[in-house]
Parts: sequence; structure tokens; C-alpha cells
Amino acid sequence: MVLSLGLVAEIAGGRLERGDPATPVAGMNTIAEAGPDEVTFLVNSRYKKFLPECRAAAVITDEKTRPVEGLAFIRCPNPYLGYTRIVERFAPAIPYPPPGVHAAAWVDPTAELGTDVAVGPHATIGKDVRLGDGTIVMSGVHIGEGTVIGPGSILYPNVVIREHCELGARNIICPGAVIGSDGFGYAPDEEGRFHKIPQIGNVVTGDDVEIGCNACIDRGALGPTRIARGVKIDNLVQIAHNVTIGEDTAMAAQVGISGSCAIGGRVQLAGQVGIAGHLRIGDRVVIGAQSGVSHDIPAGERWFGYPARPNRRAARIEAVVSSLPEMRREHRALLRRVEELERRIAELGDRDDNRGG
Amino acid sequence: MVLSLGLVAEIAGGRLERGDPATPVAGMNTIAEAGPDEVTFLVNSRYKKFLPECRAAAVITDEKTRPVEGLAFIRCPNPYLGYTRIVERFAPAIPYPPPGVHAAAWVDPTAELGTDVAVGPHATIGKDVRLGDGTIVMSGVHIGEGTVIGPGSILYPNVVIREHCELGARNIICPGAVIGSDGFGYAPDEEGRFHKIPQIGNVVTGDDVEIGCNACIDRGALGPTRIARGVKIDNLVQIAHNVTIGEDTAMAAQVGISGSCAIGGRVQLAGQVGIAGHLRIGDRVVIGAQSGVSHDIPAGERWFGYPARPNRRAARIEAVVSSLPEMRREHRALLRRVEELERRIAELGDRDDNRGG
Amino acid sequence: MVLSLGLVAEIAGGRLERGDPATPVAGMNTIAEAGPDEVTFLVNSRYKKFLPECRAAAVITDEKTRPVEGLAFIRCPNPYLGYTRIVERFAPAIPYPPPGVHAAAWVDPTAELGTDVAVGPHATIGKDVRLGDGTIVMSGVHIGEGTVIGPGSILYPNVVIREHCELGARNIICPGAVIGSDGFGYAPDEEGRFHKIPQIGNVVTGDDVEIGCNACIDRGALGPTRIARGVKIDNLVQIAHNVTIGEDTAMAAQVGISGSCAIGGRVQLAGQVGIAGHLRIGDRVVIGAQSGVSHDIPAGERWFGYPARPNRRAARIEAVVSSLPEMRREHRALLRRVEELERRIAELGDRDDNRGG
Repeated sequence: MVLSLGLVAEIAGGRLERGDPATPVAGMNTIAEAGPDEVTFLVNSRYKKFLPECRAAAVITDEKTRPVEGLAFIRCPNPYLGYTRIVERFAPAIPYPPPGVHAAAWVDPTAELGTDVAVGPHATIGKDVRLGDGTIVMSGVHIGEGTVIGPGSILYPNVVIREHCELGARNIICPGAVIGSDGFGYAPDEEGRFHKIPQIGNVVTGDDVEIGCNACIDRGALGPTRIARGVKIDNLVQIAHNVTIGEDTAMAAQVGISGSCAIGGRVQLAGQVGIAGHLRIGDRVVIGAQSGVSHDIPAGERWFGYPARPNRRAARIEAVVSSLPEMRREHRALLRRVEELERRIAELGDRDDNRGG
Repeated sequence: MVLSLGLVAEIAGGRLERGDPATPVAGMNTIAEAGPDEVTFLVNSRYKKFLPECRAAAVITDEKTRPVEGLAFIRCPNPYLGYTRIVERFAPAIPYPPPGVHAAAWVDPTAELGTDVAVGPHATIGKDVRLGDGTIVMSGVHIGEGTVIGPGSILYPNVVIREHCELGARNIICPGAVIGSDGFGYAPDEEGRFHKIPQIGNVVTGDDVEIGCNACIDRGALGPTRIARGVKIDNLVQIAHNVTIGEDTAMAAQVGISGSCAIGGRVQLAGQVGIAGHLRIGDRVVIGAQSGVSHDIPAGERWFGYPARPNRRAARIEAVVSSLPEMRREHRALLRRVEELERRIAELGDRDDNRGG
Repeated sequence: MVLSLGLVAEIAGGRLERGDPATPVAGMNTIAEAGPDEVTFLVNSRYKKFLPECRAAAVITDEKTRPVEGLAFIRCPNPYLGYTRIVERFAPAIPYPPPGVHAAAWVDPTAELGTDVAVGPHATIGKDVRLGDGTIVMSGVHIGEGTVIGPGSILYPNVVIREHCELGARNIICPGAVIGSDGFGYAPDEEGRFHKIPQIGNVVTGDDVEIGCNACIDRGALGPTRIARGVKIDNLVQIAHNVTIGEDTAMAAQVGISGSCAIGGRVQLAGQVGIAGHLRIGDRVVIGAQSGVSHDIPAGERWFGYPARPNRRAARIEAVVSSLPEMRREHRALLRRVEELERRIAELGDRDDNRGG
């Protein structure tokens, strides 16, 4: 597919600055790799250094980036979204299985499949499962009894969704993710042996949820684990039983959320963050990578650290910590100066006393 | 199913306080959601605030919780275990595959399956595998050659157990878990290239072990990786080669145990804890979330932090760290006061000298 | 199989010290467990304590280990590599599926399989996939359309490799690993809703790469995620989109590398390390366990900590942190001494003034 640069600018929702609108564009590429028939984008200033050598037909960027001799820009109010619109046009189709049930799949006769549902080889679909129109179930997927999946969802290979879960429309579940497994609940007896607590809740997701590879979303102990519309969960994330997550929240890889946490909407958790049990994280909270959260966090705050604290406080503490060796050296020098002062003052006092003061 | 409230109290091992023993109970629910035909429980004081509005037929709790006007309690010595006993009664049956081998499974003819073994679709069972009576192997599971699994075990979908491992009775292996994969062992040569060291040990588990979703238990390099009776391992945990874990130890999600560690019995590791290689963690040790352990820990101790230290020491250090900006301010003020003192004392000394002292 | 101790020493590339070269050796075992017909090895000094009781036919070790009465040593310049050579000889064959396509596998007719390719039950191989000679695809593996895998590679059960990826020769992909899944890329619109950015790159690996169980290697957003020859990646590691990793780099379990990082060659990352996005980590860098890296690191440096710093600096800071409670006590005592000095000096000044100085 080839589009004109003018059309590309239009699709991106931007304004072409320099550059011939008739230039043919055949794809997108990185700023360092893009050739004269490709467009690229610049949103992270770290990559500005590649601009002078950039050979792209145009660079999608914001209004502030300084012009570069001989380089065409597509100025966008939201260049990242502009880039997304273009790459959507050029992206090759993902090779999903065709509609219909593959001969090597196993689908329980009581399952209800909507129109244009595709089921790949070696998938297993249990009793009373309901799959919305156009849902794609790839190879090796397991869907347990009574689970309902909204229309337009994509279940990548080897996903496991246990029984009686409810997924919204257009969910994307990446390979190896597990939804609805038992939460980690045991009651110790007098001898310290654990008795497994049956986990009789389920998992309920809203529309447009994406869950990463090998991520784990446990079913509730009682009642559901709830993931609201638009939540994006990266690879290897752990969501424990009875967690609730608000709309449009995003969690990077390897985050762990302990049981019964209530995470607000539009929250952003960076990679490897851990959140202790039963906490409330308010809307729009942003938490830095690897932070360990052991307190509720009010809406709108930005925290980081282990233990996590509000960013400003954490940064002030971190600044002192980073200069602690010097502070200790000064502290020891101060100790010696005080000892010297004490000696001198005792001396002066003695002289004074001798003088019969 | 409906039970009388009196019977529910009896099953929970508790004493009904207020409430009509004849009240019909149809299930369990959370303290906020339970209706008049459901019981609930209170073990975490954080949820006491829901008591006044609670509509449950009764609340399973301990002897100390204060009575609430119009609310029936079931007083239990171990309310969490009481709750477990009740939920066991009300839990719906998990829809396992029925006994027998599904037509779409592949079982090597030399495998020995006990009575009432169930094998789901697309499972693969290798040569000389032995499965104990009543074991359930769900869809997409792989069991490698020569592996032996005790009676009553449940292997959830897409579990992989490699060759020559030995699992005890009533093991529960959650979806996507991998048992017996190669440990991470390489010998670098003079040129810095890695040579893979064959991992010729296996994994041996005791009875009543549960292993979480997508957790990984590596086989020993030489000799086994050993997981004793009653150990509970949560999702996404990594157990490296030749680790040994004692009875009734529990590890929360995303914990990582490096090679050749010896973890005692009744140890509790909170989420995302990491333990460096070759360490000995004594019995009943408790380690806080995200801690990084680089030393042996004696039996019975409680540690946390990065690096991990005994709780009391870690808390004292943490208290100072959290007030470091103020301490530095004081430190700088002190420096100025000492400078002023030095100036004053020099002045006094000079005057004294001038006076012909 | 039984080898003479003399031959064992030769295979290990070492020199037999004491011990009869004719002693029959039937295997390898740990230093504590090895019997008189087994050899063992000692590379970690922590295990020296087992030497006096060791019953092995010989101990593979370096030139420095002190002789022990009655114990034969095989002295090697690289004892770990020597051990590897011996265990390679004694290791039992791994029970891979035999060459050919299992009747229960599904292979697209357009796929090209080299000679002696083995495909196990319930594997799914897409259109235009090419598998090099001798490659082994075990049960439940999914290989997406157009993916090319080099000769001699081993794909363990339930691995997922999505479309259009390119793996080198002799790759070992452990159970449950996912290669080529979508990177975590979304553009937020004005309302804070995320729009998925199609991930149109792929994953390219060099020869002799090993990827651990349930590890995740995301495909590039634009252009490839690249993993060079000889890289070893442990279980549950996350490699985000457009990361590049240099030759012979090793990463322990649960490491997370954020998008677009460039990791050098011969880098070593210990367990649970996290690296923030777009960073450059130079060749031969070594990073300690659980470190959180938020800066570029020059070649050859060793860092640790959260936040990570050069080892020497991090250790100095850590030493002060660990004695902070004592430093604060001294600090407070110093404050009182300065107050006392101020009082005394005021007193002396007053007396001096009164004396009409």
C-alpha cells in the first residue's frame, strides 16, 4: 500500500510543514531506519539527535520541535496518536485463524458461538461457554465452563480462562495469560497446616481490556475480581483475588497487586511495582518503577520508592541518601571540631578561674 | 443448597451469638455484599466499618469483635478456618473433565493411569508416566516421560511437567505452571561463551503442594529440587535448580529463589521477595514484600528491606532514612553554630591573650 | 555408562591428583551425595566444608583448593567447564519426540520442515513457517505464520512464537515462553483513553540463544527486537519491544527490560533487575540482584542498588545507611554538646565583659 504524504498528514490529524504532499509513502519506520518512502515520528526528545541524518519522507512530531534543514514535519497536537493512526493504516493483517471451528479444536456442543467466531487448532471450549460475534480463539486456548466472552475479543495461543468468568467486548488476551485461576487463600490450622479456601468468585472485565503474556488474574475468593473498561495490563503482571481496577488504568510488566486492593481509574504503574494487600490507590495516581507501596494513596498523587512516598519527598530523601558518605565525613569532622572546642573552652575557663574571675 | 444457621455455626466450629439457628443460609459473601440468606466473615479489622450496615444472616468472627446491634455472630477460635469450612460446603463443583481419557488427548501406551483418572482434550502424556488414582489432567497439559504423579492431584490447563519428576498426592498445579525445566546453568569458556550444563536432576514434591499459575520450578542440576509437603507457591514464582523448601512454607506471587537455597518449614515470603543463591533460610522465618535477601537467616526471625535486615533494625533504619532531609538541615545548622563557636572562642582567646593571660 | 577416572580427568581437561586412573566412574553427583563411583565438583568455597566427608571418586576443582587426606582431585584451569564436559557425558538423553510430524499435530501444508524435524502432539505450525534441520517442536507449541527457525533448535511444550519472527540455529526455548507478542504500546487520546498502537516489528534471535520458561520477548513496534548470538535468558524475564541485547549476555530470572533499551554484550543481570526505558547498558556491565536502573551505564562497570549506582559508591552509601540509627544518636548528642558549648561561651563572654574586657 502506498499513500500520499498529504493523505498521511491528514490521517495523522496533523499539518504538513515543508515536504511535497504528493510524495509516496509506503510505510513507517524508526527515526534512524526510515527511508525516503517512509514516515517516522519523534515524541521522545532523546531521539532528536537522529534528526539531522533522518531520511524519512516526514517526521510526525509536535508543534515545538525545531525545524531541521531539508526535513519535512507533520505537526500534530497529539503526535503519538497521529503515529498510531498512520501505523494502523500500514500494519499488515495479523494472521488469525479463519472464521469457523478448526477440525483439531474441541468445542463442547452446548457452547454458543456468535457469527464469524474463529476457533484454532487444539483449542478447548467448555460447556455453556458463550463467545460473542467475531471473537477469535487461537490454538491451545482453554475456556472453562460457563465463561462468557464479548464480541470482537482475541484470545492468543495458549491462553487459559477458567470457568464462569465474564469478559467484555474487544478484549485482547495475550499468549499464555491465565484468567480466573484460584486466588492464593489458605487458612492455617492449629498445627500450621494450610487448608485451601475454595475461591468461589470469578473475574469480570469491561470492554477494550488488554492483558499481557503470561499475566495472571486470579478469580475472587467471594465475589469478582473486576477489571474495568480500557485497562491495559502488560506481561507477567499478577492481579490477586478480589482486586478492582478502574477505567483506563495501565500497568507495566511484572507489576504485582495483592488481594482486595482497589486501584482507581487512569492510574499508571511502572514496571515491577508491588502493592500490598487491601490498599486503595486513588484515580490518576502514578507510581514509579519497582516501588513498594504499603499505604493508601490519594487521587492524583505521584509516588515512588521502596517504601513508596510522594515523589517530591522521595526525591529529597534520595538526594540526602546519595550524599550520605560526605555527610558522615562532615559529621565526623564536626565531632572533632566540637571536641576541640570543648578542650579550648575548658582551657579558657580554667585560665579564667585561675585569674580569680 | 440451603443449611440452617445453627448447622453453619457447627460446621464453622463456632458458637452462634444472637440469631435464630433456624435461619436458612444459602451461601457466603463479602461483608459488604452479603444478604439476609448469606453468612460472611470478619478477620481483618479494616473491614469493621462495614458491620453496622451488614445484612448477613451472621458474621463469622473471633471472640473479641464487639457485638453490633441486630447482627448475629458466629464466634470461632479460628474464624478464618471456620470461614473455610463453610465456603467448602457452598462452593460449586469445579468443572473438571470426567474420568477417562478424552478422544483428543494423546497418551503413550506405556503410561499407567490409576482408577478414575481424567485426561482432558489436547493433553500429552509421555512414556512410562504414572498417574495416581483420581488424578485430573486438564486440556493442553504436557507430562514428560517417566514422571510420576500422586493420587488426587489436579493439573490445570497448559501445565508442563517435564520428564522424570515425582509429584506427591493431592498436588494442585495451576494453569501454565512449568515443573522440571532446565535450571539456568552455563559454564563460560575462555572466550566468554556459555556452555550449557546438562541439568540431570529432577523435581520432587511432597503431598498437598500447590503451585501457582505460570510459576516455574526448575529441575536440579545434579539431584533434585525438593518441595516438601504442604508448601504453597503463588503465581509467577521462580524456584531455581536444587532449591529445597520445607513443609508448610508459603510464598506469595513473583517471589524468586536462586539456586541451591535451603528454605525451612513454615517460612512465609511476601510478594516479590528475592533470595540470592546458596542461602539458608531457617524455619518459620517471615520476610516482608520485595525484600532482597543476601544473607542466611536464622530460624524464627522476621526480616524485611533491600537489603533485608531483621525487622526491628530495618524499621529503625527506615525511620532515620525517612527523616533524613530534616537531619541534614539540622546538620547544616549545627555546622554554622560550630563555626560561630569557633569564631567566638578565637575572639575570647585573643582578648584573653591581649590581656596578657 | 562407566568411564575410567583417568578418562574422566582427560574429558574434564584436568590433571588427576592422587586417585587411581582405573577407578570406574558411573556418574556425577553433588559433593554431599556423591558415592565412590561418582565424581563431583567444587567451585563455590561455601561447599568446602563437605570435603572431609566426601566419598567421591574425585573432586573436579581448581589449582588452589588445598589437598584433603584420602581424596582425589581433578585439577582444572576451568573447573566449571570441566564439570560441564563430564556431565555432558553422563547426562541421560532428553526424551524429545521422534523425527516426523505427530498425528495429533497440525501443520499448515505450506510450512517447510527440514530433515529430521520432530513435531509433537497438539503443536500448531502456521502458513509459510520454515523449520531448520533437526529442529524439535514439542507438544502444544504454536508457531505463527511466516516464522523461520534455525536448525537444531528445541521448542519445549507450550511455547508460543508469533508470526514473522526469525530465530537462529540451536535456540532453546523453554516451556511456556512467548516470543513475538505485541509490545505494550498505546497512545492516549484527549479523554485519556488508550488507542492500541499496532506492533509491526518482529523478534530476531541469533544462534545459541536460550530463553527461559514463561519468559516474554515482545515484538518491535517498528523494526525488530534483537537478541544476539549466545544470549541466555532465564525464566519469567520480560523483554519489551525494540530492545537489543548483545552477544553472550545473561539475565537471571524475573529481570525486566523496558522498551528500546540497548543492552551490550557479555552483560550480566542478576535476578529481578529492572531497567527503565531507552537506556544504554554497555558491554560487560554487571548489575546486582533487584537493582533498579534509571541511567545509562558505561561499558565494564558494576552497579547495584535501588536506584542502581556503581558498586563502590553503592556500598559506601549502604554502609552509612546501615549505621544511620547510631549516626542519628551521635548527631543528637552533638547537638546537646554544641548547646552546652554555646551556654558556656556566653557565660565566659559575660564574665569577660563584666571584667571590662
